[in-house]
Amino acid sequence: MAAFPFEIAATDGAARTGVLKTPRGDIQTPAFMPVGTAGTVKALTVDQVKASGAQIILGNTYHLMLRPTAERVKRLGGLHRFMRWDGPILTDSGGFQVMSLSKISKVTEDQVTFQSHIDGSRHALSPERSMEIQADLLGSDIVMQLDELVAWPAEEAKAGEALRRSARWGARCRAAFGTRDTQALFGIQQGSTIESLRRESSDRLLEIGFDGYAIGGLAVGEGHAAMCEVLDYAPGLLPADRPRYLMGVGKPIDLVEAVARGVDMFDCVLPTRSGRHGQAWTWDGPINLKNARFAEDETPLAADVDCPASRDYTKAYLHHLVKSDEILGQVLLSWHNIAFFQHLLREAGAAIREGRMEAFRRAFRARQSVAEG
Amino acid sequence: MAAFPFEIAATDGAARTGVLKTPRGDIQTPAFMPVGTAGTVKALTVDQVKASGAQIILGNTYHLMLRPTAERVKRLGGLHRFMRWDGPILTDSGGFQVMSLSKISKVTEDQVTFQSHIDGSRHALSPERSMEIQADLLGSDIVMQLDELVAWPAEEAKAGEALRRSARWGARCRAAFGTRDTQALFGIQQGSTIESLRRESSDRLLEIGFDGYAIGGLAVGEGHAAMCEVLDYAPGLLPADRPRYLMGVGKPIDLVEAVARGVDMFDCVLPTRSGRHGQAWTWDGPINLKNARFAEDETPLAADVDCPASRDYTKAYLHHLVKSDEILGQVLLSWHNIAFFQHLLREAGAAIREGRMEAFRRAFRARQSVAEG
Repeated sequence: MAAFPFEIAATDGAARTGVLKTPRGDIQTPAFMPVGTAGTVKALTVDQVKASGAQIILGNTYHLMLRPTAERVKRLGGLHRFMRWDGPILTDSGGFQVMSLSKISKVTEDQVTFQSHIDGSRHALSPERSMEIQADLLGSDIVMQLDELVAWPAEEAKAGEALRRSARWGARCRAAFGTRDTQALFGIQQGSTIESLRRESSDRLLEIGFDGYAIGGLAVGEGHAAMCEVLDYAPGLLPADRPRYLMGVGKPIDLVEAVARGVDMFDCVLPTRSGRHGQAWTWDGPINLKNARFAEDETPLAADVDCPASRDYTKAYLHHLVKSDEILGQVLLSWHNIAFFQHLLREAGAAIREGRMEAFRRAFRARQSVAEG
Repeated sequence: MAAFPFEIAATDGAARTGVLKTPRGDIQTPAFMPVGTAGTVKALTVDQVKASGAQIILGNTYHLMLRPTAERVKRLGGLHRFMRWDGPILTDSGGFQVMSLSKISKVTEDQVTFQSHIDGSRHALSPERSMEIQADLLGSDIVMQLDELVAWPAEEAKAGEALRRSARWGARCRAAFGTRDTQALFGIQQGSTIESLRRESSDRLLEIGFDGYAIGGLAVGEGHAAMCEVLDYAPGLLPADRPRYLMGVGKPIDLVEAVARGVDMFDCVLPTRSGRHGQAWTWDGPINLKNARFAEDETPLAADVDCPASRDYTKAYLHHLVKSDEILGQVLLSWHNIAFFQHLLREAGAAIREGRMEAFRRAFRARQSVAEG
């Protein structure tokens, strides 16, 4: 059942650090996956992504199935070859973007139908079709089950129905995917912010059996504190010997709090999206490079982060690029941000190995909060 | 008088190949200078620019004096340190953009006054101020004299007046700049498309004496054929032992025709600007990657050009990026285009050394024309 070996090297409280071994390369955990939405981590070459320390990236089924289409990606040799990324790729199921981006979407027990946000064309996504797109056409390494999402806050009845449908879809995904040596299938825990539902969801997933488990339905508006409350129990409902992936999260402080609670993997558009809007994440919190106080600041964004964008360019220069709307500003800030996220999780891993995760968490929280306050 | 040694290694007809030796590095000629308008070669990191083969870049005085201001660049250690380019930089005088970009500009014998296109603020540029900005504040390696431009077509009387004022300004630039061991000052030949005026301009420049000579006032609407006609005689009016720089040119075919006529250096926004608009320059002419015929074309833009953007990515992938308005599409096409321009001039240099420049010119012209026709 377990497609990829997952070796936990050290634990510290609920936190763990280890390595997920895939045929396309090892993934040190805790791991942050930059989002390569439409076959590109926005604004960055794959060489820059690799240099940031990222060992796995995420691809979006929704975007790719619409453009250039999954069939075309397949004809062009699969997603890895198409975008020239030779490391592992995790693809999402497409469900989240269908519900958040498409013009009209309709969910039935069989499938989701929707209209493209690009040209209004009609499409359908079933559990079986999502498996075909991810595993066979795109050639993803880690495939996500199709799930049904609810908005936050959610009524308990509605959240319960959605998690039960998600579990039925999970079983259909497992059946369609089968078991494979070189590709893994992850299930997704749902249940909004309601503990009994998270437990029910986990039980149903475990009955099916997946190669890894995601925590879905968070970072949808509930806020940092409510998310942390869910993370106090949600990871513990999932098998300790399999990777746990918190979907769509998040800010650096979210990552650190989640790692402390036993999460191993993350993805988020935040570092690249905020980088395109002049924002850099630093040890002292987020800063906006457009701010005049950086106009003659000759310090780098993070001298200790092994990335040219973090270490070699001055804030004064980045300020100038952002003020001048130069593409290079978007490139360098996106690059720095993903390198900073990678560095942060490597530091968290070191803290776990050295039994000082709680001190690391507290110190990081204090520095981030000062800057934000 | 000659600030930098210029060693001509071979000639073939009017064409020459050699090396201009500067304290910040050698420049193999014929050389193409990517334009780093406002402290950045648009969309590219300096490492990508260097990897393209470029040995010198151009900076725009007009843009930099307005933002972040030349004084700020000076306080931040000069233009090289500011933008992290450690090779030679040529700066223009600011005159061209003052006349083409600023809101209102007024030329007197003393100076040009103008309003910023960014915020309407008032500024002045005299020959002495241009020298101060370029040589002392930005810290340019090759400084251009301030000149007065005329539109094309120009009346002979008006073109004559402009070249005479340009010569007087050139003398003031030379006086303000003096002679320096580590920086060079280039004069600019004017005279529109009128041979007697080009001759008069050259005579006046030679009387002053510069470290190198530019051919200005071309690529302003006269067209390829008229430009070639001027280049039949204009380079020969300038000293054979000093570098000749054709300003603001141009398309690959313009470069090859100009090299054949004795030009050594070029700059142009074309490769980066067209790269940002989906256009790639190839051996077979320009192509627009948005075109559906590239949707499943797995060939690279130029397998023989030693640049990842030229050699490693498929046209199909670039088509997808351009169609999807991805920044990476702009980055890769800009990168390829400047690498292609570098490669083209290296090939021209090899043709000169091997005494086959005329055959190279004819063959290149034939391939480019077929694609354009």
